[in-house]
Amino acid sequence: MAKQIVLAYSGGLDTSAIVPWLKENYDCEVHAFVGDVGQGEEELDGIEAKALASGAISCEVADLKAEFVSDYVFPSLLTGAVYETKYLLGTALARPLIAKAQVEYALALGADGLAHGCTGKGNDQVRFESAYAALAPNLEVIVPWRLWDLNSRESLLAYLAERGVPCSASLTKIYSRDRNLWHVSHEGGAIEDPWNAPPDDAWQLTAPLSATPTTPIDVHLTFEKGQAVALDGEVLAPHQIVSALNLIAGEHGVGRIDIVENRLVGMKSRGLYETPGGTVLVEALQALCEIVLDRDTTRFRQQMGQTFADLLYDGKWFTPLREVLSAAATQMATKLTGQVVVRLCKGQATAISRQSPHSLYSEAFATFSKDEVYDHKHAEGFIRLHSLPQRITALKQQALDAAEVASV
Amino acid sequence: MAKQIVLAYSGGLDTSAIVPWLKENYDCEVHAFVGDVGQGEEELDGIEAKALASGAISCEVADLKAEFVSDYVFPSLLTGAVYETKYLLGTALARPLIAKAQVEYALALGADGLAHGCTGKGNDQVRFESAYAALAPNLEVIVPWRLWDLNSRESLLAYLAERGVPCSASLTKIYSRDRNLWHVSHEGGAIEDPWNAPPDDAWQLTAPLSATPTTPIDVHLTFEKGQAVALDGEVLAPHQIVSALNLIAGEHGVGRIDIVENRLVGMKSRGLYETPGGTVLVEALQALCEIVLDRDTTRFRQQMGQTFADLLYDGKWFTPLREVLSAAATQMATKLTGQVVVRLCKGQATAISRQSPHSLYSEAFATFSKDEVYDHKHAEGFIRLHSLPQRITALKQQALDAAEVASV
Amino acid sequence: MAKQIVLAYSGGLDTSAIVPWLKENYDCEVHAFVGDVGQGEEELDGIEAKALASGAISCEVADLKAEFVSDYVFPSLLTGAVYETKYLLGTALARPLIAKAQVEYALALGADGLAHGCTGKGNDQVRFESAYAALAPNLEVIVPWRLWDLNSRESLLAYLAERGVPCSASLTKIYSRDRNLWHVSHEGGAIEDPWNAPPDDAWQLTAPLSATPTTPIDVHLTFEKGQAVALDGEVLAPHQIVSALNLIAGEHGVGRIDIVENRLVGMKSRGLYETPGGTVLVEALQALCEIVLDRDTTRFRQQMGQTFADLLYDGKWFTPLREVLSAAATQMATKLTGQVVVRLCKGQATAISRQSPHSLYSEAFATFSKDEVYDHKHAEGFIRLHSLPQRITALKQQALDAAEVASV
Amino acid sequence: MAKQIVLAYSGGLDTSAIVPWLKENYDCEVHAFVGDVGQGEEELDGIEAKALASGAISCEVADLKAEFVSDYVFPSLLTGAVYETKYLLGTALARPLIAKAQVEYALALGADGLAHGCTGKGNDQVRFESAYAALAPNLEVIVPWRLWDLNSRESLLAYLAERGVPCSASLTKIYSRDRNLWHVSHEGGAIEDPWNAPPDDAWQLTAPLSATPTTPIDVHLTFEKGQAVALDGEVLAPHQIVSALNLIAGEHGVGRIDIVENRLVGMKSRGLYETPGGTVLVEALQALCEIVLDRDTTRFRQQMGQTFADLLYDGKWFTPLREVLSAAATQMATKLTGQVVVRLCKGQATAISRQSPHSLYSEAFATFSKDEVYDHKHAEGFIRLHSLPQRITALKQQALDAAEVASV
Repeated sequence: MAKQIVLAYSGGLDTSAIVPWLKENYDCEVHAFVGDVGQGEEELDGIEAKALASGAISCEVADLKAEFVSDYVFPSLLTGAVYETKYLLGTALARPLIAKAQVEYALALGADGLAHGCTGKGNDQVRFESAYAALAPNLEVIVPWRLWDLNSRESLLAYLAERGVPCSASLTKIYSRDRNLWHVSHEGGAIEDPWNAPPDDAWQLTAPLSATPTTPIDVHLTFEKGQAVALDGEVLAPHQIVSALNLIAGEHGVGRIDIVENRLVGMKSRGLYETPGGTVLVEALQALCEIVLDRDTTRFRQQMGQTFADLLYDGKWFTPLREVLSAAATQMATKLTGQVVVRLCKGQATAISRQSPHSLYSEAFATFSKDEVYDHKHAEGFIRLHSLPQRITALKQQALDAAEVASV
Repeated sequence: MAKQIVLAYSGGLDTSAIVPWLKENYDCEVHAFVGDVGQGEEELDGIEAKALASGAISCEVADLKAEFVSDYVFPSLLTGAVYETKYLLGTALARPLIAKAQVEYALALGADGLAHGCTGKGNDQVRFESAYAALAPNLEVIVPWRLWDLNSRESLLAYLAERGVPCSASLTKIYSRDRNLWHVSHEGGAIEDPWNAPPDDAWQLTAPLSATPTTPIDVHLTFEKGQAVALDGEVLAPHQIVSALNLIAGEHGVGRIDIVENRLVGMKSRGLYETPGGTVLVEALQALCEIVLDRDTTRFRQQMGQTFADLLYDGKWFTPLREVLSAAATQMATKLTGQVVVRLCKGQATAISRQSPHSLYSEAFATFSKDEVYDHKHAEGFIRLHSLPQRITALKQQALDAAEVASV
Repeated sequence: MAKQIVLAYSGGLDTSAIVPWLKENYDCEVHAFVGDVGQGEEELDGIEAKALASGAISCEVADLKAEFVSDYVFPSLLTGAVYETKYLLGTALARPLIAKAQVEYALALGADGLAHGCTGKGNDQVRFESAYAALAPNLEVIVPWRLWDLNSRESLLAYLAERGVPCSASLTKIYSRDRNLWHVSHEGGAIEDPWNAPPDDAWQLTAPLSATPTTPIDVHLTFEKGQAVALDGEVLAPHQIVSALNLIAGEHGVGRIDIVENRLVGMKSRGLYETPGGTVLVEALQALCEIVLDRDTTRFRQQMGQTFADLLYDGKWFTPLREVLSAAATQMATKLTGQVVVRLCKGQATAISRQSPHSLYSEAFATFSKDEVYDHKHAEGFIRLHSLPQRITALKQQALDAAEVASV
Repeated sequence: MAKQIVLAYSGGLDTSAIVPWLKENYDCEVHAFVGDVGQGEEELDGIEAKALASGAISCEVADLKAEFVSDYVFPSLLTGAVYETKYLLGTALARPLIAKAQVEYALALGADGLAHGCTGKGNDQVRFESAYAALAPNLEVIVPWRLWDLNSRESLLAYLAERGVPCSASLTKIYSRDRNLWHVSHEGGAIEDPWNAPPDDAWQLTAPLSATPTTPIDVHLTFEKGQAVALDGEVLAPHQIVSALNLIAGEHGVGRIDIVENRLVGMKSRGLYETPGGTVLVEALQALCEIVLDRDTTRFRQQMGQTFADLLYDGKWFTPLREVLSAAATQMATKLTGQVVVRLCKGQATAISRQSPHSLYSEAFATFSKDEVYDHKHAEGFIRLHSLPQRITALKQQALDAAEVASV
């Protein structure tokens, strides 16, 4: 019996070619698996027909949008994860979920192997295959991009044409993109020279500044234990909040990022990212943390955010450390309940108001009048002890200098 | 002979009252010391006359602007120091320099003591006195705000009026501000309720979005070993670059920050900050680091920036660890030579172009074609080893599960 | 009605004097509260009578030993907490529990205030009062050592003699000690000169090397989810395990520490610590972690251990960050189940055997033969990508050097 | 003309076979390069003859012992680098130096390629090849162990016998060892089961406890800026100090380590290490740091030590971050001048005395009497501010609880 291979299928040029290539090279049947994480109708419409036309024996489209935001995006937000101070990890967040759903589908099917269409120089191959290793260490993994000789759009199109596989892909494609409910990324084309400013035609989700409204709009977010639960007073599911914010924030040009980042595989790459709703949520959660978390916990969150971002970026979702940090973040979020207003205008999302029943900020304490918790005179003792190491160091040095003078 | 006290003098209401208060309470002569770190003519004009009119026996104004930027601001920028992800540390950077100059002046004068006008609830008292402890552990330190009963503007004005000391301060003052060449901070007034949006009248250095030009402007920055050395091709001293950028960036509304921060002394406070030129420099240096620093060094800089920000904020400039981190940062900057273009528009400063002879980014390496340094096939081995702990964990768990099933 | 004050009472010279001193200075009744954390019969025998004899209106002895080990010591062990690489935090661990029990007793009693007998230069005052602030922010706190003038043993003894309070304390006491089930600490006397070797007469729980058996003894520890649950096959409660190990390890001279440590209050102090059973448990748990935790989790535990040690040392048990880290540690411990043999001999405790159903160590994988998870050839790709930044840096530098030569 | 290959040659079974294997498979001439880092006469005696007998066209033995200790070992000690809390990095420290000397030799020779005899599952292949990538990115690298089929001692011996290459290696070899001036490591044999106690026959440099002297010996170490410069008053070069300490400490059974460590390549391995002199030096430097470094710097060193250990272990000596951390460590060492006495007895090395002109420890400050730098009363203010976040949190919660009660 022919091998059964489950392919993470997107309907694009690469995976369209992979279906026949697998069949020709592995004596197998190919099951196309599509994880819908919000890549949009443009990509999903008619995808089953497309998969079958290219030779797949079946095509499964799984709606993962709600799970994507509630189980991957929101828990990661809590930790403060931002990659290299800028990137909100849109692609990195979706990969483990797609891989997990693909593996579950393959195991249910009794399949023999897994395949994906990621190239051999990027991060996504690592993310897919790390998830495979954690969830299905016994399944065979086939990665055509590291095996075949079809290294250009031309050769891929020719390959499809030879086999009569219909494909709407054009010979030239400027940007390589990945889109989901949380973000869209752009690589390639003119972006590849880091001296080139981001071209206007790259952006998709966010309006150019010149086309954004002059009047700001304020969005009101309600959080419970670190989770955004309502937008402008309306209770919504996590993915609904992201969707709604994407529209509003995109209209105001919010959420563009231009970065040269360190790929896991050792080289740098230039990327443009649009995460309009995400940018608003990060800003709002940060504002809530500012009033609720004490200094020590804030410092821990700053470090945890960096560690978690690297874990995510490096494809380590299904690891013990990710679970450890998630447990920490869940505990940390216990009191992150409150409300934040974020003002959107001309590409910026700025928290302007924040409140929480657990706020440690107290106007009474912070101002310069007397209060129950703080006596100005306490400060003297605090400063004496805070600076004691410096004082002792200075006195020690004085004694040393004096001894040296005396000995001359 | 009367004690000689050197007071860090600003010419404002507080230090105006401190001069006579010290003389009345300590049998001393008061030397006013003004560190000019760019607080502006409004504050400095006629300050000597004002000091003498309030009873000071002398008044020294030291121009510290160049030293401020070259020896404190720029070296700190290198480390990536940003306090709690937002605050560019404008006040924290100036305090150790002012204190150092004040101490040097006092030691040259043979003075007996030091005084400052910071209140008992803020960070600045810690910064001044920590520097005093490190640089002049034998001098007496007098802190009127922690001693006297003059706890309101009213009582201070009455105190001055009784003594016939002229003072231009008004009875009501909405905001408490600190300004220097790098920034201006605003506290108090309506800001004290974190639910209130920043009032329009608070901002001083930056134009409101509605008044900013619609057309972006691009500024071109040249760096040598991490130091900004030229602006739009013109070689300038560090403080000249900051001054020039302040004007351009301020006009475009760049550099506003709204934060609820953790004070060192244990409570939270709300602050608004404007750092127009600084915001541009931070963005530009970040863009340069992105192409020059490798991943490991980038991670170290992210952590060093947090540590250095805390050191600065907490008044620990004159400490061994600050020197250790500065040595690290200097070494790290060896290859931070290059050029960055930052686009200013509608409140945003965004690096759009970056280049360096030491750039590790290579279009040839990052794209998906073959090259000399990277063979797609290498990725397989990398991923296998990268994900090996996950694979082993999974296989181990399978064996355990199988054993459990067998034993049932 | 007189104020009701609950004093953390030890029965030593200091708290014996504090009872009458409080009554004389505060118009109050004093309730002695003794937290039994294993300080031993020498200290506890007849303590109620002693308290009443010194004027206390009541004396409560609470047995906290089991709670001490199960709720404070073992959970902290999990995190890897060791202060400044040496100190196992014996005193720091007991303080929050004693303070909590004292507070609960005071609240139940409807008392007005709390007092303790810690001096003004140590860490313990901070630990007690930080717990008071967290658990009973409204109760008055009285700290005689920072208020009175009784600054020597002589003056304290005279003070008691004048009042006819019986006290067995002698005029000279060489060492200041704190003992509980987990450890005993020694400060003062000849130890205060860090050039002096630890005097033989200081140690209490551990035999000198010359008196230890020549034959090693092996102890067998069983762990479940990071908790030691059995010793040599016998299931025991946490405090029983510590007690039993203290005897065995002490007989073999295990667990002596000599350290100059950084006190929280800004100065250094020299201390000797004996933690015989604790040293064995730390060694055993480390050995178990070595086989169960992967590299990333191990790194996190190394950092968490440092952070947790500082939290404990600094009296921050009742804080959000402590709860966050405890949640992380609990999750981390999920698979820390297994067995470890520790050999005790001549002052050393060394894990010699370890096993776990969750061990990631596999002889089959680590040796140099072929296996299912690792192909030698994978290493090439791994190394190429691992060292890619170095390769790119070198190639870049070559190109720069060549350009320079060409331009000459 | 035949290719010229420079092989890192040890004279052992593996590299003896590699010489002819390279010649047969690459049409090349093989130059044997031996880096003498103190592996001892047993390994070095007659090594040139052995190399030539196996077919090498030349054999170069470079004495790297002094450079090894002064430029690699001592600078790394400064940073506090210890891998996974135990391993003193003996092998990891030597590899970059050997690789660098090999590369320099190859470049001087005009060679075409480099080879080493490390297997495909260990860390050393990564260390060699990372150094090659940094120092000679254009040279070809050949790694026979990842290419050939000679996967057992039997097949290697047969391969040599067929070619008449003399070899003293026996068919069975229990342990795989790496020895240099700093340490010796042992892997394989019975050690591979982590439940087995270390076998007595494994250890080479350290006496078993039963054979060590009963009387302790004290060694006196003098440090200048963090460097050990004299032993028992005699000024010695770094490598001489290590050699001398190895003998003394080895005689007392000091420096044994038993660890299951995380290899870089993703699996765990069990190793025994002996680092007698190194253990003494680490203990002594730690004791000096305890009296000289303040708390903040101590914390930084704890973290730097972990980072540096990982860099070393992972073969990243020739990287920017290693240079950054070395610059930090050099600055940190400025005041690490002083003397330490370490007592050696029955397997333990314990610092018992330490002094430094820069010691921040002061008996006068630490004891409980009054002094110039510290007033007991300062502590109150310190504690109030230190615990302020806890107090505010508690008061906030009280208010919340009260509001909840009121609303019921």
